[in-house]
Amino acid sequence: MQALTLHAGCLAFQADWPAPTPGPDEALIRVTLAGVCSTDLEMVKGYVAGFSGVLGHEFVGVVERTGAAETAEWIGRRVVGSINIGCRRCRVCLGEGPEHCPNRTTLGIHNRDGVFADLVTLPVVNLLPVPQSVADEAAVFTEPLAAALRIREQIKLRPTDRIAVVGPGRLGLLVAQVLALGAGDVVVLGRRPESLALPARLGLRTGLVDEQPDDSADLVVEATGNDAGFAHSLRIVRPQGTLVLKSTFHGNADVNLTKLVVGEIAVRGSRCGPFAPALRLLEASVGGDTAARLGVQVRPLIDAEYLLRDGLRAFDHAARPGARKVLLRPT
Amino acid sequence: MQALTLHAGCLAFQADWPAPTPGPDEALIRVTLAGVCSTDLEMVKGYVAGFSGVLGHEFVGVVERTGAAETAEWIGRRVVGSINIGCRRCRVCLGEGPEHCPNRTTLGIHNRDGVFADLVTLPVVNLLPVPQSVADEAAVFTEPLAAALRIREQIKLRPTDRIAVVGPGRLGLLVAQVLALGAGDVVVLGRRPESLALPARLGLRTGLVDEQPDDSADLVVEATGNDAGFAHSLRIVRPQGTLVLKSTFHGNADVNLTKLVVGEIAVRGSRCGPFAPALRLLEASVGGDTAARLGVQVRPLIDAEYLLRDGLRAFDHAARPGARKVLLRPT
Repeated sequence: MQALTLHAGCLAFQADWPAPTPGPDEALIRVTLAGVCSTDLEMVKGYVAGFSGVLGHEFVGVVERTGAAETAEWIGRRVVGSINIGCRRCRVCLGEGPEHCPNRTTLGIHNRDGVFADLVTLPVVNLLPVPQSVADEAAVFTEPLAAALRIREQIKLRPTDRIAVVGPGRLGLLVAQVLALGAGDVVVLGRRPESLALPARLGLRTGLVDEQPDDSADLVVEATGNDAGFAHSLRIVRPQGTLVLKSTFHGNADVNLTKLVVGEIAVRGSRCGPFAPALRLLEASVGGDTAARLGVQVRPLIDAEYLLRDGLRAFDHAARPGARKVLLRPT
Repeated sequence: MQALTLHAGCLAFQADWPAPTPGPDEALIRVTLAGVCSTDLEMVKGYVAGFSGVLGHEFVGVVERTGAAETAEWIGRRVVGSINIGCRRCRVCLGEGPEHCPNRTTLGIHNRDGVFADLVTLPVVNLLPVPQSVADEAAVFTEPLAAALRIREQIKLRPTDRIAVVGPGRLGLLVAQVLALGAGDVVVLGRRPESLALPARLGLRTGLVDEQPDDSADLVVEATGNDAGFAHSLRIVRPQGTLVLKSTFHGNADVNLTKLVVGEIAVRGSRCGPFAPALRLLEASVGGDTAARLGVQVRPLIDAEYLLRDGLRAFDHAARPGARKVLLRPT
């Protein structure tokens, strides 16, 4: 099969990679469409050490076969799949789920081949069927949309909160839309006016991050993953406010802990989120009244689609400043 | 009057400093006993820029006179006083209190002369009478004990939480005792075995921070204020655990944000706390059954007492590695 692999820091297209075989609790899925995420780009840059194999974790596909007769009902279903695979034996798995299992593998990120391939395997328990009304081009956003929804699980929002999302990128624009659902005043902040055109088209309030006053937001979501974005986020959040770190940082950052302590800031890391609500939100958004904020718009975030065999060009595109979602289609 | 002042980064004893005059809403207090805190030491090192005047914010004293006849009842009372003086007009003051007022002054820290002097002024609303059974040597701990109690206002503790306090210093040992009240398993972690003798005598479990496993605590309180302490604290806290920053850091720190995001750690800055519960706790601790953790022990933390005129020597003592509380007595 075709696959986009990372080995010793080198991204390569493989025309003839061995197809995986599903284990007894797994399904073999034919990938229809996959999305390139900033984590993929960071891995290619070498910021995540030690991964070797097929990259990619955002996908929609169709179950081709399963490893056991009891799960044969899944065959032919259009599915998305959550990306953490726990050991299902430890205290964390049995308590809170697989997302923080110390023995977990993570699809295309840690010890498990990912979705930039014709075929991928996942445990059947990780799969969710995609509602018929949700197109592949929307369903492929389930994973990052779930990550955005994670903030709503972690942080209590008040309808009067002043919310700022720093970073108008592929994740920031999902986060901003999710925070605007039933909440108050959300502003998307960027460094360049060009980067704010799309959020404005999505109906989001926008501003230049440099011009945002100190201590002016109750909740700030850092969605740039760089030091400058973090410094601005900490500057903008008010004393006793909340700063959510949504983007993975590479290595260490230089953090002004004085404001954090004196201002009693609450900082919260935020990673993977719930798939079922993300799918429900995508379903509710089909033809929904987005102006009234009953849904989210994901398809305007698509910058380009490439065939999997052009994956290296797709990665170059996704790494351009200002690029949003780049999709990969195996065939 | 006598005063210990900081000007252009220089600590000096002044034998003949002008005595303050109370404003209409203020009291003039004769300081009985004052405590040296790490913040004072950091200010002398120049880490807090721009302060000029009398240092010090931990004290117990007696009201000598007040600025208005309506508050004359306070004259002769033994008092402690909270250290933030808000503008009482802004949204923060009228909502949450003076601690985060953007226009606030802070006793001996920001735009207001402090307590390392014979006399000090404070608004009467900042004062609390000290119960008769609480000695000056205990009452002088009200401010740092309130700061320790602040954590109990900010963080929900479960009786089964594994709690680590990193830093067995003057503040860490108050924090550890306060967290042990009605909560579970508290361990005080230090770098050197000598530093753990006192916490052991206080009945606290102790350990070497280097030997503490990764991801082994539900709640970690960082009470060292240095980069190494922060790095250990982040290492020790489990995924989805909480890290409280209790010590003021000077400037920036090099922080591994990857664990913070991937582990979805909650980091919380923590500063000033409630004085009334701190005084009640000190009162309950007099002759209390500390082995049953119904109280806290503060007087074993006293390393030395100096006359105010020997304040420079007192500061040298307080800055020694392993030093706990150093007190200053004006006369």
